[in-house]
Amino acid sequence: MRHDHLIDTRQLSREDIEAVLDRAAEFADDPSSFGDRHPSALLGLMFYEPSTRTKMSFETAMKRLGGDVVDMGPVESSSVKKGESLADTARVIEGYADALVLRHPSQGSSKLVSEFVDVPLLNAGDGAGHHPTQTLLDLYTIRENAGLDDLTIGIMGDLKYGRTVHSLAHALTNFDASQHFVSPESLQLPRSVRYDLHEEGAQVREHTDLDAVLPSLDVLYVTRIQRERFPDENEYREIAGEYQIDRETLASASDDLTIMHPLPRVDEIAPEVDDTEQAKYFEQAHNGVPVRMALLDQLLSNDE
Amino acid sequence: MRHDHLIDTRQLSREDIEAVLDRAAEFADDPSSFGDRHPSALLGLMFYEPSTRTKMSFETAMKRLGGDVVDMGPVESSSVKKGESLADTARVIEGYADALVLRHPSQGSSKLVSEFVDVPLLNAGDGAGHHPTQTLLDLYTIRENAGLDDLTIGIMGDLKYGRTVHSLAHALTNFDASQHFVSPESLQLPRSVRYDLHEEGAQVREHTDLDAVLPSLDVLYVTRIQRERFPDENEYREIAGEYQIDRETLASASDDLTIMHPLPRVDEIAPEVDDTEQAKYFEQAHNGVPVRMALLDQLLSNDE
Amino acid sequence: MRHDHLIDTRQLSREDIEAVLDRAAEFADDPSSFGDRHPSALLGLMFYEPSTRTKMSFETAMKRLGGDVVDMGPVESSSVKKGESLADTARVIEGYADALVLRHPSQGSSKLVSEFVDVPLLNAGDGAGHHPTQTLLDLYTIRENAGLDDLTIGIMGDLKYGRTVHSLAHALTNFDASQHFVSPESLQLPRSVRYDLHEEGAQVREHTDLDAVLPSLDVLYVTRIQRERFPDENEYREIAGEYQIDRETLASASDDLTIMHPLPRVDEIAPEVDDTEQAKYFEQAHNGVPVRMALLDQLLSNDE
Repeated sequence: MRHDHLIDTRQLSREDIEAVLDRAAEFADDPSSFGDRHPSALLGLMFYEPSTRTKMSFETAMKRLGGDVVDMGPVESSSVKKGESLADTARVIEGYADALVLRHPSQGSSKLVSEFVDVPLLNAGDGAGHHPTQTLLDLYTIRENAGLDDLTIGIMGDLKYGRTVHSLAHALTNFDASQHFVSPESLQLPRSVRYDLHEEGAQVREHTDLDAVLPSLDVLYVTRIQRERFPDENEYREIAGEYQIDRETLASASDDLTIMHPLPRVDEIAPEVDDTEQAKYFEQAHNGVPVRMALLDQLLSNDE
Repeated sequence: MRHDHLIDTRQLSREDIEAVLDRAAEFADDPSSFGDRHPSALLGLMFYEPSTRTKMSFETAMKRLGGDVVDMGPVESSSVKKGESLADTARVIEGYADALVLRHPSQGSSKLVSEFVDVPLLNAGDGAGHHPTQTLLDLYTIRENAGLDDLTIGIMGDLKYGRTVHSLAHALTNFDASQHFVSPESLQLPRSVRYDLHEEGAQVREHTDLDAVLPSLDVLYVTRIQRERFPDENEYREIAGEYQIDRETLASASDDLTIMHPLPRVDEIAPEVDDTEQAKYFEQAHNGVPVRMALLDQLLSNDE
Repeated sequence: MRHDHLIDTRQLSREDIEAVLDRAAEFADDPSSFGDRHPSALLGLMFYEPSTRTKMSFETAMKRLGGDVVDMGPVESSSVKKGESLADTARVIEGYADALVLRHPSQGSSKLVSEFVDVPLLNAGDGAGHHPTQTLLDLYTIRENAGLDDLTIGIMGDLKYGRTVHSLAHALTNFDASQHFVSPESLQLPRSVRYDLHEEGAQVREHTDLDAVLPSLDVLYVTRIQRERFPDENEYREIAGEYQIDRETLASASDDLTIMHPLPRVDEIAPEVDDTEQAKYFEQAHNGVPVRMALLDQLLSNDE
């Protein structure tokens, strides 16, 4: 595997991560002033699943750098329907582009494709696997708002199936973070993730209730509890209701709390929270642009 | 609401309208010579309904100004499917773009979104509500071909449900126009629209037959009578047939008549009319580009 | 018809073809260094059928030349659903673009549209009709690898329905090529194509078995045998199996053999062939970019 494929944040050292975040901070200052950076670069987009945020922010990032995209488009309008393999499609599209972005529902798909293509590949989510650019924009948002040193973070919601959460937890072991996981018992961290985190030396505590831990948090990272995880609608409603955030919930939180959410949200955070100084989830989504600019700039500069 | 959101043409004075049309005329002379105008600008496209003309001409306008677009894509491939609210989606996408364009099936949706976002928003049609950029390109086409002063215009077809027609009629009250509405009885202007037009001082007459009024017209604006409005297929055929235009119909029209249609047409205008000097409906569609260039140029220049 | 519409390769002389291939070779050397060539040009994309390769390589070609595209998008999101005719849609879109590309399932559709529009039109496949840009990239790939002089080519697979194959065979009659057609009896060349090729002076031989002819070939062009052509699944499997290429099949082939395939492939060429020096089908797909750059450059330069 080429060093410049990005498949999993675990391939990045603390120094690698900080270099990306530093560069992102430069881009964030004035994203529209870098149009001369990569004026002839083309980014190939391969999205096998619906995506708004990830796809649009990659596209925005590339265009802010002066380049452009070529998009495979929805699977329904592509050769995939004619039975073409993922590796074949990628080997065709790499001939059109200077780098590729892949989102695919199958875990391991980005790793597989990275073994077939010669241009840099960025994993934009491979099912239950990894989503490294999401993790980097989460880290960037934390650093800008709360700092990554001596961090106390609460991560709440669906911790069992949440790919985003597992990646972030692993990445935070590079820093001096105290991690509190808050979830109903049925959606706790999988044993394997808990084991890996301990092996990596993470400071981890688990809770079923937010109240006790909320006052000590610098960051509260909320994720969605999905209806589909519960056979019984009533059980879902009851549990989901306990893990919703509103102004009342936040009464005991620090004024400096940073509230994050990978979006889209449904009912996990009440709209009344949007106007607080603590709400940073839209800023977090917007941070996808400078962070992806930093990654693309790095890859395309390596190539020159 | 920021002054630079464009939700409804009624927010524009006659002077505002004329400034847009004047600027559009400059762009129309040579649309491809303005590529240095907004080279780093990005326009966010949010189309919740199918659209060819409106979407493509916004995209063309932005690219002719040297900028680019980031497109949410079809609703089926977006986070909307995951239950995200319109306001949340807009607040995410405004972080990627310098201005937004929204088409949505619900009346009032653009107004709603305009209260949540900080970048300028252009309403590209909100169901039975408004479609101001269509009205501006209609006015531009009238001005270029017949002039807006001392205008006698016939507006024919479905006047009951036709959003385009209501907006145009209201906008024409800014000018010295005599308006003739021609439709079957079942598709006449809604009472509320008629009332508003009278309040605004419009010179309005209603007809069920085109023949009497055709010779006096400077402009004939034809719209589609939709099959879905009629419970009975035979009734539809009979009525629609009476409001179709062909060369024979046009025998009594002025040689200088300007025939317009918002397109797509089905059977309302016979193909044999396309080759007449009077047919301006394709030119009208093409005018969407300079008019939208003028609007975008105005919004993006305000922002600087 | 304007000379600069490209509907069918048969409208091109040997000199015309060689001019395109020569220009393509210049672009192929460093495709990303021509961004100043047509910086304000817009290409209108009208794809009424799914396409990955053709659409993306047209888009890449236009962007490599410094221009951009405006895309009608999938038929489901367009005015086509409202009953608009193909000619009307094209006459609208020509107002947005400097040239048009059309793919449509109906034979003759590009010819039809070319009679309505004033900007250059490129046929990107009209059902069972023509696909001239595919033929040109095939010729380019042959010329770069085997040369077009004294060529011995084998064309194998579905020769009855294969539009690509018919166009290529006709185009090769411009050169001094010996053509061997290899197929099951039920999928042989249609009598009309065979007749036309003889009329054009082609050197044609037909076979049901690859073995006898393989050692003499400079190029082996493989196409897919489609399941849908066979009422009986077992018959399909048996026949398709006989026309698959793997390393064992290739034992008797020249080391200099050039293996081509228009892609997507399903089982016609085993993945183990991909790593041979003979496999050129991904390179062939990539050649779509410089060849389409050459065509677009020619059309857009004529226009100036």
